[in-house]
Amino acid sequence: MSIQEKFSRLGTDHAPGQEVRQQSSSVEAMLRGDPIPGRPVDFSHGDVDAFEPTPGSFEVFSAGVTAGGRQAYTEYRGDIGIREQVAGHLAVFTGAPVDAADGLIITPGTQGALFLSIACTVARGDKIAIMQPDYFANRKLAEFFEGEIVPVRLDYANAQGRAGIDLDQLEAAFKAGAKVFLFSNPNNPAGVVYSPDEIAAIAALAGRYGATVIVDELYSRLLYSGVAYAHLRAGKVDPENVITIMGPSKTESLSGYRLGVAFGSKAIIARMEKLQAIVSLRAGGYSQAVLRTWFNEPEGWMDERIRLHQAIRDDLLKVLRATDGVAARTPEAGSYLFPSLPKLAISHTDFVRVLRLQAGVTVTPGSEFGPHSGNSLRFNFSQDHAAAVKAVERLVTLIDRYRA
Amino acid sequence: MSIQEKFSRLGTDHAPGQEVRQQSSSVEAMLRGDPIPGRPVDFSHGDVDAFEPTPGSFEVFSAGVTAGGRQAYTEYRGDIGIREQVAGHLAVFTGAPVDAADGLIITPGTQGALFLSIACTVARGDKIAIMQPDYFANRKLAEFFEGEIVPVRLDYANAQGRAGIDLDQLEAAFKAGAKVFLFSNPNNPAGVVYSPDEIAAIAALAGRYGATVIVDELYSRLLYSGVAYAHLRAGKVDPENVITIMGPSKTESLSGYRLGVAFGSKAIIARMEKLQAIVSLRAGGYSQAVLRTWFNEPEGWMDERIRLHQAIRDDLLKVLRATDGVAARTPEAGSYLFPSLPKLAISHTDFVRVLRLQAGVTVTPGSEFGPHSGNSLRFNFSQDHAAAVKAVERLVTLIDRYRA
Repeated sequence: MSIQEKFSRLGTDHAPGQEVRQQSSSVEAMLRGDPIPGRPVDFSHGDVDAFEPTPGSFEVFSAGVTAGGRQAYTEYRGDIGIREQVAGHLAVFTGAPVDAADGLIITPGTQGALFLSIACTVARGDKIAIMQPDYFANRKLAEFFEGEIVPVRLDYANAQGRAGIDLDQLEAAFKAGAKVFLFSNPNNPAGVVYSPDEIAAIAALAGRYGATVIVDELYSRLLYSGVAYAHLRAGKVDPENVITIMGPSKTESLSGYRLGVAFGSKAIIARMEKLQAIVSLRAGGYSQAVLRTWFNEPEGWMDERIRLHQAIRDDLLKVLRATDGVAARTPEAGSYLFPSLPKLAISHTDFVRVLRLQAGVTVTPGSEFGPHSGNSLRFNFSQDHAAAVKAVERLVTLIDRYRA
Repeated sequence: MSIQEKFSRLGTDHAPGQEVRQQSSSVEAMLRGDPIPGRPVDFSHGDVDAFEPTPGSFEVFSAGVTAGGRQAYTEYRGDIGIREQVAGHLAVFTGAPVDAADGLIITPGTQGALFLSIACTVARGDKIAIMQPDYFANRKLAEFFEGEIVPVRLDYANAQGRAGIDLDQLEAAFKAGAKVFLFSNPNNPAGVVYSPDEIAAIAALAGRYGATVIVDELYSRLLYSGVAYAHLRAGKVDPENVITIMGPSKTESLSGYRLGVAFGSKAIIARMEKLQAIVSLRAGGYSQAVLRTWFNEPEGWMDERIRLHQAIRDDLLKVLRATDGVAARTPEAGSYLFPSLPKLAISHTDFVRVLRLQAGVTVTPGSEFGPHSGNSLRFNFSQDHAAAVKAVERLVTLIDRYRA
């Protein structure tokens, strides 16, 4: 494959955060009516001004700068003292041991962890099972390394009490030779959590076919009331066949420090460090210090954060569900809402641009996440509560204006 | 190629900063005499406690954190305001225009820029010309993307008034089909600067054969007195065929913030951003703010920093040159010294381990940089002056102890 072909498949034009690079001229011809005034809301990512970084994070960073060279130049996999502290917390949180010396790597964001873990498990032509819908970069990563994607459907809209994975399709993927299965739990974009039964079934299938499972658990701390969460690594699996990815960029609003971790299989972590050495050397040295605040937040802080997100979620769902033709499952964790829209007179991709131009509302089109979710929009509702409600009201006004 | 094969070639055991992961048991049997006491010096990288980060850098970072979401979530290629400021400085410094909107990307360190630029220009089986010796990651990057390396010899030890590139070999590489040429200027590890004539010849050859040139100019600001430096991008070249890489990690001691930039070819920069979106999303948002101090240092600060490094260089050279069988060319820029050693009773790789165990002196073996420099050691002499001199004196003692 030539470089040109390889990169033509790696589009970022509709990726969250890149809207500023779009040309608006092509959309202007299809506009109906006037702009709707209101405070702009960028639902493509969480608003770290509305939900601020973990208390004490900046102070810990400052202490890292003061520590100087020791903190600036760590092992490529990260400072051992910080790895030890984080490993302890993650073992408790996930319910299975974490080896600080050989079983954990600190990466520049969870994106860094995802990139390295796919690079270290998928060679050219290897089959990799990926959920549809799922985080948009999963597909791009598999394509970049010339893996062959075997899609597995997530029937998030209709499943009850479970995420909705098609386990027959997953088994068929393993039977067809997929040696890696990558999924996010809670699912990004749908906000659904895999039930303990689903996780047990995934573990059993992976075991039967000797597959490696990479679980992106980025949002697993932001769990709404009454939801049970099962960590795959705590189940009946070969620990050398599981990589779990987490980080403090979302719930903890520490994205500006670019921190993530991958932990589990020592063989894969060893490869990931070798690769990190030529990709970015290490997660920013001073930033690594910020992980000292992780799972170490002030008493009650996380509960309050969850409560506030649940309140926004519920208010947005009320507005959306009052709208003819809009359907939305209640998110069980994380801060993504993924409603489906009715048929419109313009494409849903164009509608996303119109929404930004006429209502100051930025969302991510469902087509970024898989081929079956093009009529949905993803909202990261980690926003100012009142502004988010007003923004979704403007969205509803535009849905009515552009109905087919 | 299987994943196992691919990663077996990606060794980091002898890479700078990874010494802590080495087992010392294998070396203990060959030790002669007692340890030599003295303050340990890690020459594998600069000491940011001896040469501190640019004044004001932490304050600018803090302001970035205070700015909040705007600074945490930038375009993948970096904040446009910062890109504009940096582009202006780089245009003046390099003597050719830099397009802030489309011709520059901010990366997590210059390592990030190197990784992306190779990923975006070298497809499987493509030929890439690489200097020997040169920065060790260059070879690893080419191998990771399954490029075919065509080596070009740098006769740094014997050249006079020039770096010593074998231009016939470079032309032969282009004739053989190499479409990319990657080199560092000043050279890492040899510390030599390509003469204006050499740069003009490289530009002419690249133009004749339509090759893309990636120039790593990481150390180009730390230029010793009397040395002329030519930026390839300011010469007679198609600007779309040149990528220049720089960053504030070395001379400015800002490595802990993980910042680099690549600038030049708009087509390649566009690909690099697409890839960065799945590799690490962006350089740390708050860290990007630190680039506001770059090329913006207090009056006289850079001159003083160069003067101090030149003084260390000269004192280390005196100690080394007084030692029988040690040869060292005077570095013209940067903070690397690359002396060659006499024949020893143990291999040079083992000697590097002995040096760490018995003298508390950490250096990088010359074999990391190419197949012809195994009898050399790389020193990053950006260290405490007195401690560096003492450390090199201990090295000399051990050379005598282990002579063949």
